[in-house]
Amino acid sequence: MCGFVLWFTGLPAAGKTTIGEIVAPQLENRGCVVDVLDGDVMRTHFSKGLGYSKRDRDTNIAHIGWVASRLSRAGVAVVVSAISPYEEGRRYARSLVEIHASFVEVHVATPLEECARRDPKGLYVRAFAGELANFTGVSAPYEEPRAPELRLDTSGTTPMESATTVLARLEELNLVRAPG
Amino acid sequence: MCGFVLWFTGLPAAGKTTIGEIVAPQLENRGCVVDVLDGDVMRTHFSKGLGYSKRDRDTNIAHIGWVASRLSRAGVAVVVSAISPYEEGRRYARSLVEIHASFVEVHVATPLEECARRDPKGLYVRAFAGELANFTGVSAPYEEPRAPELRLDTSGTTPMESATTVLARLEELNLVRAPG
Repeated sequence: MCGFVLWFTGLPAAGKTTIGEIVAPQLENRGCVVDVLDGDVMRTHFSKGLGYSKRDRDTNIAHIGWVASRLSRAGVAVVVSAISPYEEGRRYARSLVEIHASFVEVHVATPLEECARRDPKGLYVRAFAGELANFTGVSAPYEEPRAPELRLDTSGTTPMESATTVLARLEELNLVRAPG
Repeated sequence: MCGFVLWFTGLPAAGKTTIGEIVAPQLENRGCVVDVLDGDVMRTHFSKGLGYSKRDRDTNIAHIGWVASRLSRAGVAVVVSAISPYEEGRRYARSLVEIHASFVEVHVATPLEECARRDPKGLYVRAFAGELANFTGVSAPYEEPRAPELRLDTSGTTPMESATTVLARLEELNLVRAPG
């Protein structure tokens, strides 16, 4: 039983999904049942018609938080990757989870310049050109977590190194055991 | 590990939730981690703004099916109570679940007359008076499951007896063990 929620928040292209995808199988190796919830994917299942206003974003985050809450209550290690730019939305998701299980907020604090340099989908270029309204970090705010359980600056760090840091933090919090 | 979905479908006031609430703790007694998803409750979490057209009902059922799929995949015994009046919606929910786990459809086949006699919320009276559009069984269709894993006629039967029948069927399907 590894019931907890590992919630990656950060700017677009910060590395949330990439790090989560490395951590997930490592959690399985340590005996956890794992599920991965991606903010974008969840939109296609539950949040059709939601846009990118603060309200709609927080609604999407509330949906993810609710599913994560049910899964973690059942003993699942839930890995969430979602921009989740608003403190209010993250706090609500945490409140749903903490009824039953631990909520581990990981701020993937890659600087904006580095995210914009990576720009895998070419969205930062369009946002800086003024073509995308509500693009987090450029035309919409990202409210940095004040007291996350872990803050990762991934510039100059490989995703594998970041994943190792995450696992060490989970051990420190007594949520997973050291391997072997 | 008891990963399966026990899906109660039937008319309003057929007894779906009542029977589910008796079955759920009995599954816990047999060592299952259990979660209960109620169609009406799920609407408040995920389906704000959805109405009672076929399309909106099927969307709500798809949401429930998706959550049930994730939970059952993680080894949870998921008890769903939802009118789920359309074959198409139920079939889609089943398809999501059966990727990972067993789907046990229980048609709570209480006759309309008996449901209308019970009428705990006074809704049948209003529906027969023409005040409620899209009320299943009166002003909206209920498509009976053709081949459910179990069909229960609860008239003349106590909810406890129905719950016992459900558990016996789950044993028969090798999804739970006999107690003791």
